[in-house]
Amino acid sequence: MSNVEGMRKIRRFIGGMIGWTVMSAGAGQPAAPHLDLWRVYHDSFESAKYIDLTHAFAPGQPAGSGFGDLKVGPARAAVAIPGLIEKGEPFSYEKQGAGITAYELPTDQVGTQLDPPAHWGAYAASISELPATYALRPLVVIDVSSQVSADPGYAATLDDVKRWEARHGRIPAGSVVMFRTDWSKKWNDAARFTQRPFPGVTLPALQFLHLQRHILFHGHEPLDTDMTPDFQAEAWLMHNNFTQAEGVANLDQVPEAGALIIIGYAKPEGGTGGLARYIAVAPPSWPHGVTLQDASGAPLPTYAKPLRRGTDGVLRR
Amino acid sequence: MSNVEGMRKIRRFIGGMIGWTVMSAGAGQPAAPHLDLWRVYHDSFESAKYIDLTHAFAPGQPAGSGFGDLKVGPARAAVAIPGLIEKGEPFSYEKQGAGITAYELPTDQVGTQLDPPAHWGAYAASISELPATYALRPLVVIDVSSQVSADPGYAATLDDVKRWEARHGRIPAGSVVMFRTDWSKKWNDAARFTQRPFPGVTLPALQFLHLQRHILFHGHEPLDTDMTPDFQAEAWLMHNNFTQAEGVANLDQVPEAGALIIIGYAKPEGGTGGLARYIAVAPPSWPHGVTLQDASGAPLPTYAKPLRRGTDGVLRR
Repeated sequence: MSNVEGMRKIRRFIGGMIGWTVMSAGAGQPAAPHLDLWRVYHDSFESAKYIDLTHAFAPGQPAGSGFGDLKVGPARAAVAIPGLIEKGEPFSYEKQGAGITAYELPTDQVGTQLDPPAHWGAYAASISELPATYALRPLVVIDVSSQVSADPGYAATLDDVKRWEARHGRIPAGSVVMFRTDWSKKWNDAARFTQRPFPGVTLPALQFLHLQRHILFHGHEPLDTDMTPDFQAEAWLMHNNFTQAEGVANLDQVPEAGALIIIGYAKPEGGTGGLARYIAVAPPSWPHGVTLQDASGAPLPTYAKPLRRGTDGVLRR
Repeated sequence: MSNVEGMRKIRRFIGGMIGWTVMSAGAGQPAAPHLDLWRVYHDSFESAKYIDLTHAFAPGQPAGSGFGDLKVGPARAAVAIPGLIEKGEPFSYEKQGAGITAYELPTDQVGTQLDPPAHWGAYAASISELPATYALRPLVVIDVSSQVSADPGYAATLDDVKRWEARHGRIPAGSVVMFRTDWSKKWNDAARFTQRPFPGVTLPALQFLHLQRHILFHGHEPLDTDMTPDFQAEAWLMHNNFTQAEGVANLDQVPEAGALIIIGYAKPEGGTGGLARYIAVAPPSWPHGVTLQDASGAPLPTYAKPLRRGTDGVLRR
């Protein structure tokens, strides 16, 4: 447990559930720069609030009309395993003690998404070509929910962006900018969610964010960027090699300024749509979100009710 | 652009591609705690190195023999759109200018994974039940690649863990611990990758990491935790409500101590397997990885060669 070369020692506080501390090896010794990120994690992320901005995907969720619904069910054995499973038999908790799931996705435009520009062009980047810097970014939330509650077809304007800057300062380059409309609260009513009018984002707002503020991408709660017949805003984004997030949730639980976003997704080779998971990280004083003290993640809880497959093939309690 | 209430101003350096700076509103004014995470991002993550630890998934990749291979192809229109597409016709760049992809996954145990304990038990957490604190963690890399190059069936021991601690200090609680074996370099030879012997992790090493060091999860490069006939190590993890990462890549490009990991995955409701993407974040001085200056992510490059679907349905250049 002693360290060579005067590097800092990392020790867990005895009796602390999560806590660990970075102690310098001795008075006057220099800090070890190669452990700086662990110190940063300890100081700024161990007590932070984490908010999931993702809808879990399942059949029957809101989707465009152009594709069939996704299908979910138990995985089936491709070969017999004597004494365990017949060929073609579904795996189950009851017989094999195993939960294994199969999916048919007629489209990759499913649920909470990250659209890469290869969705609209063969010479543009696919999901597996996005750089590793799609990972952690500042998160800006522009709240137009009051405008949308007065007019469900409201599209966020450049003025909305400038109003945010008047309150909070210049939007950081490289950040992710989400438009809060509270449309995501209709997610469990798929017909209502996809019905027009729905809220959008105007092209001038997006052009300002990308060309003047150099953001990474913007996100919105509906499944389309706007209601124009030629998908004006999405077309401009995709044809100019920008990505976008769609179907985002829980933006009402995130501060307008000062949070970070963690960007995750499945990584199919050459993928044209992103099955995404977005997590916001907010300061300890923020009232929403879970902490490491609330939910360390290991061990996970044992539930009182078992998972059972519904008629739609999805495991639920 | 001026701020109220003495909060710090956020401004982008004129002429800087990525750079932005947090300036205090005036000498002696207190910092604005609600913007602390943006300051942390600026100080510690804008110049960091990002390393993708994920294999992109595609048909023909290494997999167990129990399931058929995944299928990939163009999405097909469920309804005709006059002048654009017939019912059942595949979307293509050539005709509709659209890249949309369909998937059939006979199992969710595919590629770089995050196994939730619901994989082995109905009363345990599924993918959509993992807390939002599965997001950003300290990353420990225990290098047993030299042992594995001498013995491909080598399983990492408690002594290997203790050797890491003797060099670097106590393993942080809540961290992710990856075992580097360089087995991932065989990924493009699926038969060789899945052939026995392959490297593993011993149960005493995993029990120490979880019960004495309280890590979040461990990860390994092969698709199974060990070669025991009853999956001894995986069974213990899953039955004790722990997760694990499988099929991890590029651990030879990550420091043994001092990096962070960003945890992403698709989020199917009640999911029993995780289509994951793991990104390591290393200090600026680390020789591997991309920076925001190398790859800001917006705009993405225009490629010289177009994406075309191969005979396996995957878009490649």
